[in-house]
Amino acid sequence: MMIVSPLFVNSDRLNRSIETLAQIGQVADGGVTRIAFSPEDIAARNLVQNWMREAGMNVRIDAAGNMIGCYQGKQANFPALATGSHIDTVPNGGPYDGALGVLAGIEIVRAFKENNIRLEHSIEVIVFTDEESTMIGSKAMAGTAKNNLENYRLADGKSIGESLGKIGGNWDELERAKRDRSQIAAYIELHVEQGGILENLNKQIGVVEGVVGAYRGIITVTGKANHAGTTPMEMRQDALVAAAQIVLQVNNLGNEKPGNQVATVGKFNVFPNATNIVPGQVEMSVDIRDLSADRIKYSIAKLEQQLIEIAANTQTKITLKPYLWVEPTLAASDIVKAIADVCDRLKLSHHILPSRAGHDAQEIGRFTNMGMIFVPSIEGISHSPKEHTTPEQCTQGTNVLLQTFLQLDRIYSTQILHQSQHPPANQFAG
Amino acid sequence: MMIVSPLFVNSDRLNRSIETLAQIGQVADGGVTRIAFSPEDIAARNLVQNWMREAGMNVRIDAAGNMIGCYQGKQANFPALATGSHIDTVPNGGPYDGALGVLAGIEIVRAFKENNIRLEHSIEVIVFTDEESTMIGSKAMAGTAKNNLENYRLADGKSIGESLGKIGGNWDELERAKRDRSQIAAYIELHVEQGGILENLNKQIGVVEGVVGAYRGIITVTGKANHAGTTPMEMRQDALVAAAQIVLQVNNLGNEKPGNQVATVGKFNVFPNATNIVPGQVEMSVDIRDLSADRIKYSIAKLEQQLIEIAANTQTKITLKPYLWVEPTLAASDIVKAIADVCDRLKLSHHILPSRAGHDAQEIGRFTNMGMIFVPSIEGISHSPKEHTTPEQCTQGTNVLLQTFLQLDRIYSTQILHQSQHPPANQFAG
Repeated sequence: MMIVSPLFVNSDRLNRSIETLAQIGQVADGGVTRIAFSPEDIAARNLVQNWMREAGMNVRIDAAGNMIGCYQGKQANFPALATGSHIDTVPNGGPYDGALGVLAGIEIVRAFKENNIRLEHSIEVIVFTDEESTMIGSKAMAGTAKNNLENYRLADGKSIGESLGKIGGNWDELERAKRDRSQIAAYIELHVEQGGILENLNKQIGVVEGVVGAYRGIITVTGKANHAGTTPMEMRQDALVAAAQIVLQVNNLGNEKPGNQVATVGKFNVFPNATNIVPGQVEMSVDIRDLSADRIKYSIAKLEQQLIEIAANTQTKITLKPYLWVEPTLAASDIVKAIADVCDRLKLSHHILPSRAGHDAQEIGRFTNMGMIFVPSIEGISHSPKEHTTPEQCTQGTNVLLQTFLQLDRIYSTQILHQSQHPPANQFAG
Repeated sequence: MMIVSPLFVNSDRLNRSIETLAQIGQVADGGVTRIAFSPEDIAARNLVQNWMREAGMNVRIDAAGNMIGCYQGKQANFPALATGSHIDTVPNGGPYDGALGVLAGIEIVRAFKENNIRLEHSIEVIVFTDEESTMIGSKAMAGTAKNNLENYRLADGKSIGESLGKIGGNWDELERAKRDRSQIAAYIELHVEQGGILENLNKQIGVVEGVVGAYRGIITVTGKANHAGTTPMEMRQDALVAAAQIVLQVNNLGNEKPGNQVATVGKFNVFPNATNIVPGQVEMSVDIRDLSADRIKYSIAKLEQQLIEIAANTQTKITLKPYLWVEPTLAASDIVKAIADVCDRLKLSHHILPSRAGHDAQEIGRFTNMGMIFVPSIEGISHSPKEHTTPEQCTQGTNVLLQTFLQLDRIYSTQILHQSQHPPANQFAG
C-alpha cells in the first residue's frame, strides 16, 4: 500500500480570510455586527463572492438569497457534495460563528484548484441567508419555509420580502430555492462549537451526531395576590412558591440520567412584583432540547404530571402552553463514521456530541445526508466579541472537512458507478 | 349586685358617619382616594374636626399635623385615655381602613355626651397624619421621627415640610408634637383586621397582642448567563435554580412550627430574562414579620446559613443586604385583658392575634400602654374598593372600645387615686 502525505489546506490563507471578513462590520470592542441584509452583510457577501470566483467557482444566488458557489466535478450527472454556513452575525457577535464554515469551504476549493484536483462530485459552498434570525435560506432550500411574510418579519420591523430583493433573492419565487437529494448528496458544515464540551474534554474535533430538537412553552401560575404582612402562611396561594418548585423540577428533568438533554427556565416574571405583596401570578418559559424527540416528549409528559401535583399542593392554577416544536435532525451515520475515521487518520482527537444550537445543517438534513464538524470555542463563549477559536483549530477543522469530502467522493462514486455490494476501499487521499 | 344594661353607641349614627366620610374622595368604582395632604384629605379633616366639636371636644392640631380632639375628664391632672387612627387612604382604598377608628372615637364621645357621662380621665380622639405613607404623625408623637426631610419625601415628590404647613403642622417644630406616658395613660385603636383570620375562625372581635416587627432585605444571586441550548446541565451556574431554592427556604421559615411568623419573597427579577439564556442573576426581596424580635432574628440567621449552602451547591454567589428593621410593639397586658373581658361580657366571641400590618398604635406603644381592637375584614381584603366590614361589626368594635375605656378609667383611677394593692372592682359599666 502506497503511503502518500495527505492534502492540507493553506492555514495562513484560511486565517487571513477569517480576519479580513471580520473587518466588515467590526465594532469598537472587537465584536462584529453584520446583521443579515444590512450594508455590512451585503459588503461581506460581495467579498465572499469574489473569493469564490477567484477559487474557480461559478456563483449563483437562489430565490432565498442563498449564495451558491460551485466547483465543478468530473461527473456532470452526479449530485453535489455541499458545505457552507452563514456570514450574518448577531449584534456584536464574534468572527467565527458561521464565517468559519463558509471560508473553510472556499479554502478547500482553493487547495483543490492549486493542486489541480477535481473530484467526481461537484463541490458546493453555500452562504445561507439570515441564519441568525429567520433561517429563511436553509428553510427555503429544505422546503420548510412557511409562505407567509409575517412569519419572517425582521427584528427591525422590515419585511423579509423587500430585504431578500436587496441581496438578489425573490420572495415570490421562494419555492424555486427548494432542492432535493438528487441535487445534493451530502451536506457537511464546519462550525465553532458555541459550547464548552470539547475544551472541557480536551478534544480537538467534535463529530456531531445530530442537531437537537427543541420544545418551548409558557407556564402560567395563578395564585392569589395578598398582603405579605396580614396573610398567614396557611392562607396563602403564593404563585412564586409554586413557580420555584417548577423551576427546580424543570432543572431536575435536565439532570435526569441517563440522558444528554437540557431543560431551562430562562424567562420568569412575577406579578405584581412588590416586596409587601404575596405574588399572585408568575409567567415563565420552559425550553427542553435533545437529540431524541421521544426523550423530549417524555420530559414534557413528566413535567405536565408534576405541574398537576404542584398546583394541588400550592392551591394554585397552572397552565402549560406549547409554542414551539423543532424536530431533531440526526446526522447521517456514514458521514459521522467518515469524519471520525478522518480524525483518527489525521491523529486529531475527537468526541461525538449533539449540536444543541440551531444550524442551517438541521434544515438541510431534512432532505439529504447531513453531518457537522465542530472545533472548540474557547471557554464555550459565542455570540460575543470574546468568541474565539485558535487559527490552528480553524485549520484542523478545515482539514477534517477536506478529507471527509475526499472520502465521501470515493464512497458515493463507488455506490453510484458500480452499484457495488462491497464496502468501499478505505484508502487515504493523497 | 345591681345589673344595669351597658351603654351602647348609636349604631346608625356611627355607620352614617362612615358613609358620609367615604364620600370625600370617592372614585368611580366605589373606592376612596384620600391621599394625605390632598384637597380630599383636608376636606375630610375639616368635616371630622366639626364632628369632634359638635361632640363636645376641644380640638387642636400639633406640629405633626395630628388633629387631637379632647373630651375633658373630671380629673384635670390625670393623663388622657386616647384612641384614634387615620383618615388618609391609599389610592383607591376602602372606606374603613383608618376611618373606622377615628369615627368610633367620636361616636363614643357623642354617646358619653348625650348620656351626661364624664370619665375621670379625659378622652382624646386623635387623627394621625399620613399613616399610609410616612406615618409622620404617630412617629412625631412618639419621638421616633428622624429630623431629616429627605426621609419623608412624599410619593408625588413634594416635601413633607411644605405639606405639613397645609394642614396646620410645622416641620421645624416637630419635636413639640412629642408626648409621654404622663400625658397619655393608654392608647387603644380600633381598626379593620386587613386579613382573613377572624372571618376564617368566625370570631367577632380581634384582641391584638402586639404589632409585629419587620425585617426586609435584598438577596442577589449571581451565576453565569449562558446559552440555554449549548450549555450542558453540569456546566451551568443557573442563578434562577439557586433563587428558586431560596424562595422555598424563605417559605419554609414562614411555615416553621411552632410560630406565628410570616416570611415572603414578593419581588423577584431575573436577568437577562430570555427564553434561550440560562439566567445569570436574580434579585429578590425578603420580608419577615413577627411579634418576637428574637424569632425574626433566628429566621434571618437560619436564612443566612441556608444561603451559604445554596451558593455552594449551585456554584453561585449570594448576598443578603438588609434595608429595614422595625422593632415589634407589644400591647399592654392590662389592656389585652380588659378588651378580652369586655368581649366576654358583651357576649362577643374574640380571638387574640398579632397585627401583621403597621398601625399608628405601633409608634404610640413605644411610649405608653397600647392596645388594639380588630373587627373582621370580609375575605381579608383591604387597600381595595372591595374592603368591607358590616355595619354591625363596626358597631360591635366600637362598643368594645367604649366599654374598654370605661373599664380602664376605673382601673387607672383606682391605681392613681388610692395606690391600691387590691385588684379593681370588675363592675360592669352602666
